[in-house]
Amino acid sequence: RVLVNGGQSWFVVSLVGMCIGVNAALISIVTAWLSDLKMGYCSDGWWLNRQFCCWEIEGGDESCDSWHSWSTAFPVRWTIYVLFAVTFSFTAAHLVRSTAKYAAGSGISEIKCILGGFVMKGYLGFGTFFIKSITLPLVIASGLSVGKEGPSVHVACCVGNLVASLFNRYSRSQGKMREILTASSAAGVAVAFGSPIGGVMFSIEEMSSIFSIKTMWRSFFCALMATVTLSAMNPYRSGKLVLFQVTYDRDWHFFEIIFFVILGIFGGLYGAFVVKFNLQVAAFRRKHLGSFPVAEAVILAMITAIIGWFNRFMRIDMTESMSILFRECQGGGDYDNICQTALQWPMVNSLLFATVLRIGFVVVSYGCKVPAGIFVPSMAIGATFGRMLGIMVKALYRAYPKSSMFAVCQLDLQCITPGTYAFLGAAAALSGVMRLTVTVVVIMFELTGALTYILPTMIVLLVTKAVGDFLGTTGIADEMIRFNGYPFLERDDHAYNVPVSKVMKKHLHRLPASGLCIRDIEERLAATDVKGFPIIHDDSKSTLLGYIERSELRYVLDKARDVQALSQDTPCTFKSSAEDRSQVSSLVDFPVIATGPAVGIDEDLSMEIIETTASAETLQLWPWVNKTPLTVSPSLPLEIVMQLFKRMGPRVILIEDRGSLVGLVTVKNLLEFTLTAQDKERSPWSEREF
Amino acid sequence: RVLVNGGQSWFVVSLVGMCIGVNAALISIVTAWLSDLKMGYCSDGWWLNRQFCCWEIEGGDESCDSWHSWSTAFPVRWTIYVLFAVTFSFTAAHLVRSTAKYAAGSGISEIKCILGGFVMKGYLGFGTFFIKSITLPLVIASGLSVGKEGPSVHVACCVGNLVASLFNRYSRSQGKMREILTASSAAGVAVAFGSPIGGVMFSIEEMSSIFSIKTMWRSFFCALMATVTLSAMNPYRSGKLVLFQVTYDRDWHFFEIIFFVILGIFGGLYGAFVVKFNLQVAAFRRKHLGSFPVAEAVILAMITAIIGWFNRFMRIDMTESMSILFRECQGGGDYDNICQTALQWPMVNSLLFATVLRIGFVVVSYGCKVPAGIFVPSMAIGATFGRMLGIMVKALYRAYPKSSMFAVCQLDLQCITPGTYAFLGAAAALSGVMRLTVTVVVIMFELTGALTYILPTMIVLLVTKAVGDFLGTTGIADEMIRFNGYPFLERDDHAYNVPVSKVMKKHLHRLPASGLCIRDIEERLAATDVKGFPIIHDDSKSTLLGYIERSELRYVLDKARDVQALSQDTPCTFKSSAEDRSQVSSLVDFPVIATGPAVGIDEDLSMEIIETTASAETLQLWPWVNKTPLTVSPSLPLEIVMQLFKRMGPRVILIEDRGSLVGLVTVKNLLEFTLTAQDKERSPWSEREF
Repeated sequence: RVLVNGGQSWFVVSLVGMCIGVNAALISIVTAWLSDLKMGYCSDGWWLNRQFCCWEIEGGDESCDSWHSWSTAFPVRWTIYVLFAVTFSFTAAHLVRSTAKYAAGSGISEIKCILGGFVMKGYLGFGTFFIKSITLPLVIASGLSVGKEGPSVHVACCVGNLVASLFNRYSRSQGKMREILTASSAAGVAVAFGSPIGGVMFSIEEMSSIFSIKTMWRSFFCALMATVTLSAMNPYRSGKLVLFQVTYDRDWHFFEIIFFVILGIFGGLYGAFVVKFNLQVAAFRRKHLGSFPVAEAVILAMITAIIGWFNRFMRIDMTESMSILFRECQGGGDYDNICQTALQWPMVNSLLFATVLRIGFVVVSYGCKVPAGIFVPSMAIGATFGRMLGIMVKALYRAYPKSSMFAVCQLDLQCITPGTYAFLGAAAALSGVMRLTVTVVVIMFELTGALTYILPTMIVLLVTKAVGDFLGTTGIADEMIRFNGYPFLERDDHAYNVPVSKVMKKHLHRLPASGLCIRDIEERLAATDVKGFPIIHDDSKSTLLGYIERSELRYVLDKARDVQALSQDTPCTFKSSAEDRSQVSSLVDFPVIATGPAVGIDEDLSMEIIETTASAETLQLWPWVNKTPLTVSPSLPLEIVMQLFKRMGPRVILIEDRGSLVGLVTVKNLLEFTLTAQDKERSPWSEREF
Repeated sequence: RVLVNGGQSWFVVSLVGMCIGVNAALISIVTAWLSDLKMGYCSDGWWLNRQFCCWEIEGGDESCDSWHSWSTAFPVRWTIYVLFAVTFSFTAAHLVRSTAKYAAGSGISEIKCILGGFVMKGYLGFGTFFIKSITLPLVIASGLSVGKEGPSVHVACCVGNLVASLFNRYSRSQGKMREILTASSAAGVAVAFGSPIGGVMFSIEEMSSIFSIKTMWRSFFCALMATVTLSAMNPYRSGKLVLFQVTYDRDWHFFEIIFFVILGIFGGLYGAFVVKFNLQVAAFRRKHLGSFPVAEAVILAMITAIIGWFNRFMRIDMTESMSILFRECQGGGDYDNICQTALQWPMVNSLLFATVLRIGFVVVSYGCKVPAGIFVPSMAIGATFGRMLGIMVKALYRAYPKSSMFAVCQLDLQCITPGTYAFLGAAAALSGVMRLTVTVVVIMFELTGALTYILPTMIVLLVTKAVGDFLGTTGIADEMIRFNGYPFLERDDHAYNVPVSKVMKKHLHRLPASGLCIRDIEERLAATDVKGFPIIHDDSKSTLLGYIERSELRYVLDKARDVQALSQDTPCTFKSSAEDRSQVSSLVDFPVIATGPAVGIDEDLSMEIIETTASAETLQLWPWVNKTPLTVSPSLPLEIVMQLFKRMGPRVILIEDRGSLVGLVTVKNLLEFTLTAQDKERSPWSEREF
């Protein structure tokens, strides 16, 4: 069995990885086609995007005969551009609204909560997957200031969930499913950025609440399979995995660190600004726009298209604009005269305008009811700002080439590479808004392969983090979790200075170990919707015997009817004799004492156990009782209970005072408490942030 | 205070990072000089190594006039070479033996244990640091088949420990010190491989037993500071951080995956082979060679030098030979005709010979009583094997250029790049012996910046891991921990199927909460060397009240004498009244109920507390009592207790049965149990390994 299980793990993870890779390639291809459709069409075949249409023709813009703009007249082209944007956004928003509400938004916050143990039925279902996959290209093509990387993680997790559900071992075990989801999220980032190791780091730094080497290895494998699949499908026909991959030939100089620090500060300020105002927009949206999600998305797309048309960096796709901004000037990097010294000040204005405008659009667009990520928009903003700074530094150098600061340049006119500033700006903005560090370094590194730019990237992110910590913000994913009130424990440890007894639930739905008949249990199940029941000895002291999950109880009640002759009056027992136990433990080869032998095992085996323990007189429920739930004493400080939840990952912790059950805490109880306690104090630069 | 502490953290971590960078640069420079000294000397100055001596002269071997070989006659040169090797190894081994025994070996296993909570006095002290730093260049220069990367981690941790000890906050808190050590280990790898992110990954994948974002961020920062310092010192004067950094221009082809799989298999087999036989050598060494450490090292160095001289890849430094093997043939990569087709078969023989011989030397050398790592030797072995395979594949291609397998090559003679095979082989061997995956990918990536080689590297490591898992080996660091019997919990979860009550220590040294005088406590401290004492109520039920560490008890007994008039008969109390508590909690601003208010705080504050609670009649010990130690019930399965240790990191877990203390477990108790249980079954391909 061990061998089969091991093989199955490999198989499931690779299958998940491959499906994610295929799906990502399809989304990329459709997105590229739809984006170009706003500008024109290909006469060789309507299904070709501009790049493929002009495949044989080298070198560019005007020389491609098969590609036709919709019109030559400017107002007509502009109108068609806006009309397409409106159509795309309407289709997407309407589809999301009418068929799969969960497909809206980025999804990262929710998946964090799901990985932390929160159950959201249907969030990873087929409907969500399908609608998100087809609306995502529409949204990106509509020109809204949202990205596809966050949703791509959500889609990947849907794939992971759907594929793994086909296998009994995963569908019945929450823990195993979470491992697959963590691996899927790694693969999602891996295909979104063409960065397999970045994906693994993302799953460690952002997603997983419990870190283990095994999970890391699964993420590694899943990300590898997804990337290899994507690379084999080669959606851009360029060998590149993402549109904005670049390579740098030139090195940086120590004096540039001053400017890198400016980029870092920008990243920190940008992150704090967006998080703050996006939350206010979200509050406004919830209050006033709840019933007009489609109209909201359409109007946003329209405004973005109307205004964006007039800026050369906002008219085109964000990934495309990034690939332009990142490039060195040599070797075809001179898009729209961006490298011309004569035009440098108009270019700076244009970039500044794009930066400011895009920030505004991101603040209002992120969170509207279509699939929408914030990774790429943030990077695009950072890139425009960075390029602007780069051009300015270059201008400074040209103005004072002999100044002591530029001494190392030795009159080499290529001393400053504005493209690298764009690149570092993108890293700073991404890190500022998500509060990720190592992940961002690895992703940026995997986008360029520029060995020499690791240190500058790290320096920039260091400053970004320092600024962010000083302003006291956390990442947007965490803020959204808090805003939506999801049950999720922050990873920072707070000191609350209260014992757990202050927080615990004292009125419990307990079940005595014996003396109940099926009718009683059915009644109790109907009367409450708690997720599980503590089992107590039927003595006065209410000694704790174990804990049974509601789902397990439900399951065995239903299944047992097929095997046993059960009436409503059949007594049930949660206790076992030694002889009962030995009967069952011959069936299962894993620790009987650890939990109930039948907790979380697969269908076949549990049916076998039901058959083994079946008798006419009583229904044996004890194999499904977890006999050693995690218990703590009522005086244990809340902080430690939180750490137990975070590090051990139980659904519930029981509070036992000298042997008798006195209460119970779940993550929800803790959060209810902390939400009130938290607002009191949040000091900037507090030590735990470091 | 929060602000000061935060600033101090930043300061300490950057100081540690910078010291590590400086130390690494010095070691690199001295190593390069000593290595060249074996071959000849510089007439411009004895302190110059060959590279600096020939600095102005471009292009190579024979044209440098200032550099003189010791002799022109072959036997004389050979003799001098061997003599230098013997001298270096003797000096190193003698220094280690006579002054700092802990400087021997790699140190990674021990540091893993220290980070897991094990205390080894002096292991990170100044003596160890100093001796290891000066003997390391000697050992590398002596030509022994050992590397400097493992020891470099140890040295970095020494630096971290020494620097942080200067600050009260770190020297009195085990937890904080462990964080600094984790960060130092990241910086150690970062400077050894010029790979800051690789260092961070190493600290996550190999070192830290409890993962937290904060620790990761500290490691990131420390590695950055160390790498920036190293890069500013620029020890090789080439802008490179390590000697074997390379860049690749060419891409790989899908058909090459077949050969990559062979490299992966080699890595797995190599790892299993070395781990198995090195442990046998270690057992032999312990049994028979314990009293001849110096002689052993000298003889090994002599044999290595005598035989190695005759192989062109073993005569030179391992890092140098790697840099030769990794290079592409174009652009000066043709060292000693390695790229000449006419000489390809002699070259294959030479490489095979080097591979086999070096494996033999590694097996016997790793673990001898000088500073000795296994990273670089493994990589060198993988590189020779990989280059050999690469040359063979190239020969195959030249022989059958039209075969369908090579169809994609399109008659381009540069289709196969043997250098990349060497590179991938090095990754495979390193991963095989250490059982690291993500870390190795990141390190190899940071060595080359070859974006396109991430996927091949991942594929190779996948195969290596599969082979290693199939053969059932673990990494050499873990095997060494087991071999040496250090108290360290493996990260894999085993199922033992016993409750914790089977393993716990039942005979405890408890202290009643009141009724003891100082003499009693002194007597009890003298009578036993346990690390701490449970405090119980003086009733019949032995209700648990708390736990006090031996060191805290010792500390307060000593300090209180300065403040209070204490006689041997002064009664002590571990109990506190509410009024006592409020007095103390006005001094400290962190949770009084969590632990004793004075557990692990700094010197000034604890003196203040002693003064506040001082009175003539009784010695107040309660502020140093941890009032809520982690407790579990005796029926809790051992697996969960292990997870508690691993994830929560306590020193001790108390066993409480319905309110009364019945036992206690430490990591040591668990290990004693598991060592006997473990040997019973270890199945290959078991699911948990995946």
